[in-house]
Order: sequence, then C-alpha cells, then structure tokens
Amino acid sequence: MAAADSSLPIAMFDSGVGGLTVLHECLVSLPSEDFLYLGDSANFPYGTKSRDELRGLVARNTRFLLDRGAKLLIVACNSATAAGADVAREIAAEHGVEVVTVVGPEAEIAAAISAGGRVGVLATPATVSGGAYHRALADQGRALEVTEVAAPDLAPIIQSGFPFDEGVVSTVRGYCEPLREAGVDTLILGCTHYPLIAPMLQRMLGRDVRLVTAGHAIAATAQRLLESAGLESRNDGEGDYRFLCTGDAAAFRELGTRFLQMPLGDVEEVAP
Amino acid sequence: MAAADSSLPIAMFDSGVGGLTVLHECLVSLPSEDFLYLGDSANFPYGTKSRDELRGLVARNTRFLLDRGAKLLIVACNSATAAGADVAREIAAEHGVEVVTVVGPEAEIAAAISAGGRVGVLATPATVSGGAYHRALADQGRALEVTEVAAPDLAPIIQSGFPFDEGVVSTVRGYCEPLREAGVDTLILGCTHYPLIAPMLQRMLGRDVRLVTAGHAIAATAQRLLESAGLESRNDGEGDYRFLCTGDAAAFRELGTRFLQMPLGDVEEVAP
Repeated sequence: MAAADSSLPIAMFDSGVGGLTVLHECLVSLPSEDFLYLGDSANFPYGTKSRDELRGLVARNTRFLLDRGAKLLIVACNSATAAGADVAREIAAEHGVEVVTVVGPEAEIAAAISAGGRVGVLATPATVSGGAYHRALADQGRALEVTEVAAPDLAPIIQSGFPFDEGVVSTVRGYCEPLREAGVDTLILGCTHYPLIAPMLQRMLGRDVRLVTAGHAIAATAQRLLESAGLESRNDGEGDYRFLCTGDAAAFRELGTRFLQMPLGDVEEVAP
Repeated sequence: MAAADSSLPIAMFDSGVGGLTVLHECLVSLPSEDFLYLGDSANFPYGTKSRDELRGLVARNTRFLLDRGAKLLIVACNSATAAGADVAREIAAEHGVEVVTVVGPEAEIAAAISAGGRVGVLATPATVSGGAYHRALADQGRALEVTEVAAPDLAPIIQSGFPFDEGVVSTVRGYCEPLREAGVDTLILGCTHYPLIAPMLQRMLGRDVRLVTAGHAIAATAQRLLESAGLESRNDGEGDYRFLCTGDAAAFRELGTRFLQMPLGDVEEVAP
C-alpha cells in the first residue's frame, strides 16, 4: 500500500459536467488544493446504465486517476456511487487513498433538516433502482416518508446545455408532480447535475421545500480527512486545476466554463 | 388617486437582465401573481449614469409601467433605487400604487447576520457615490465597519453573457481584493446582476464570507403589502409573465431565458 503524498491533487470523476457542482464547493472550502477532474462524457449518461456496467466504469475511472497520482478520490456522481462505491474503495485502498462519495451526506442532511419528515429524492433510474437512498435514509434513525422519482431525461437535458424551452419545462414539471402530490418538505437533488437547475426546481416546488445537495458536505469531509492524515496542501496561493474528459474536449470546456463560472483552460482528451 | 386592482400584474424594472434575479424570488414566493417586467437595455448600464439621468429614467419607466396597469411596482435595480426611489414613490402614489425597492432589505439582512460587523458592499459607481448603502447601514442601530467597492465593469460583464475568460476572472478578483484586505465577513451584492456570479464571488472570498442578496426579502415585502391591501391574485394556477425591453428583444430573450431558467416567450420591444 503506497502512502499518499500531500503534494498530489484531489481526484474526482463524474459522467460529465455535473460533478463540477461538487468541485465548486471544494474550491470554496479548499482553495489551495490541486484538483484533477475527469468527466467521462464518452459514456454519458451513467443514470440509465446497468449496475454491472457502472461498476466497470467506476473501477476503470478509479484506477486511471490513482495511477496518475492522487491523495484523495471523490466520486462526484450519484449513479456511480450507488452502483460501485465499494469498488472504488477497494481499489483506492490498494493505493492507500481514501474515498469520499455522495448519497450518504445528502441523506444525513435531509433527515436533519426535514420539518415534517416527508423527504423526496430526485435521481437517475440507476440510483433509484439500486435503493442506495432508501437504505441511507432508513439508517438515519428517524421515521421518514420517502418519495423517490426517477428522472431519466434530467441529467441529459442539463448535460446538453439545457435550452429552457417549453418541452424542458414540461418534462421537469412532470418529475416534480409526484413530489408535490406527496407534499415533500425536503428534496434531495440526487444527481450532481441537478444543482445547476435548482432555481427552476425551487419555483416549481415552492418556497417551503428545502433543496439538499451534497457539495458542501463533501468538501467538509474531504477537508477533515486531509487534515487528520496530515495531507493538506502546502501551496501558498491558489491550487492548480486540471480537467480531463473522455468525449469531446471542446464541448466539455465550453459547458464546464459556463457552469463552473471559471475558465477551465486546456481540457485533455483521455482514453482510460 | 386610482385604486389598484387585484387582477393587475406586479410591475418591475431594471436596466437589463439583473432584475430577473429578483423576479425569480418573486416567482418562488408568489407563483400565481402576474408579472410585467421591463428591461431598459437600450439605456444599459445604469451604474455609470449621473443622478439626474437616473432620476429621469426612473420617472419614465415608472409612468410607462403604471400607465399599462400595475398593482405594485418593484424597482429591481440598485442604481435606480439609490438615485430615484423617491421619484418612483411620488409618481406611484398618484396611481395609488405602492413601491418596493432594493438597498434597504440587504442593509437590514447584512446588519442582522454579520458575525463581526465587517460588512462589504459591491455595487455600481452610481450606487456607491450616492451613499445609499452608507445611510441604510448607518440606520441599522449597530456599529459596522463598512467597505464599499465600486465595480464599473461587473454589470456590463454579466449583461454581455459573461464569457468566463482570464480577463473577467482578473477583473472580478481586483474588485474582491479590497474586500479580502478589509476582512469583510458579510458582503452585500449591491446590484441585481451580481447574484448571477455568486459562485465565482464565493470562491474568491472563501467559505466564511456570507453573500447577501435582496430578492427573497423583496418577495416577502411584496407579499405582505398585497395581503394587507387585499390585492392578492385570484388566479388558480400559475400567473402570466410578460417581458418588455427597450433594446434588442432577441438578445434579451436569449440571455433572460438562460439566467431565469425559464422560456421568456415573446419579448416586446417598447419605447417608453
């Protein structure tokens, strides 16, 4: 087992640009760390893939990033976490690297803040069918009425740069309908793409529904793990951010720059 | 003095698309109200205009919107509020219509939440030189150390669709530098355009600086005024939203749709 090194970057991956919502929170909390981000856009969307396919992609992405060198791995994709968090942890353990994932943090926050215990989960089909949120919410030690909605089209709409036309509005409204009917007071955005349309969701659900995302909690967990292992960056100024993608680098750069509100610089096309 | 009518829309104006950040919060809180939004993009930017010019524009926009019919007027622009809130109120009073403005709400929130009393204000030159925030913060009954930064280029960068290149990053970083040096713990986004780049500002200022915007408070004030006057909408479903602009309607529609995450429909070009 190799020892991680404080000068290495924090690695993270997602099926596309959604994980940038997690990266953003990491940059707010950990500005002097270096980051290595992989968008597996050639295999987008993850949310409609089988469990076995996803476990294969998680293994491949994890090995690829850790072989390049990383001191911590963040799985910034709910579908990948739901299907293969254990796969990522097993491979990372061989490299002496810890893994931070989504799903758990949102469940914990939702259970803590829900006023009436009616929690909604909006997620991809792969995440919903895997039952990861169902289990994570059941583990919170509180009786919750959970309404899960599988949204096959939502991440693809966002990944395509979401043209906000009537068709998109009608699709999103359809996903919100069962959540409104169930009277959820708290909604977990169970895909890292979804925070990008939080304003639209908040309008459709109303002021009283609290939207829960994982980013801030992920950043806090990453910070705690690095501190307890003595792996914090020794950088004086801002860290260095590198972006890799398996699909069209120019499209990733354009969309990512807009979403992250930061020039991504050169995006390297890779074939893990 | 004409009596306002509950079936009339809530009118609001801004120099461009910035006021849509206020409209968004109104749509979350007041989904069944009708709205009439005027973007005075032909006269953009307001933030570098003289006080007299701004008072003329406020008078013209207010008359134009109230002549079309409105039960409430929201001045969704800080430069216009700072220079001419009294002008809007005087004209609206002739129509029996109340006016809600920015500046006051943000000052109240900032004074309430600032942990250490070090409050920053990022605003246009017109807003800063008019001293409106200086007075509003002094009225809060708490000793505050206030750092104001005039940002002539920031609203124009956002109104142009903000291409996030190195030049933009460097400009915004320059505006943040005196705020960082002063160690502000709370920052008022003193222009309705600025919430659109809140993620970028939060990264530059760090996790511990709280960003204050007016939108939510404006929506709550509008709701309270309508309720106390018995002017709430009788609509069953969602209200009707109409957009007017004095400049290029196609450009306004494209940018507005992206920022508001909602198709604006037909944008009417008007010449008040």
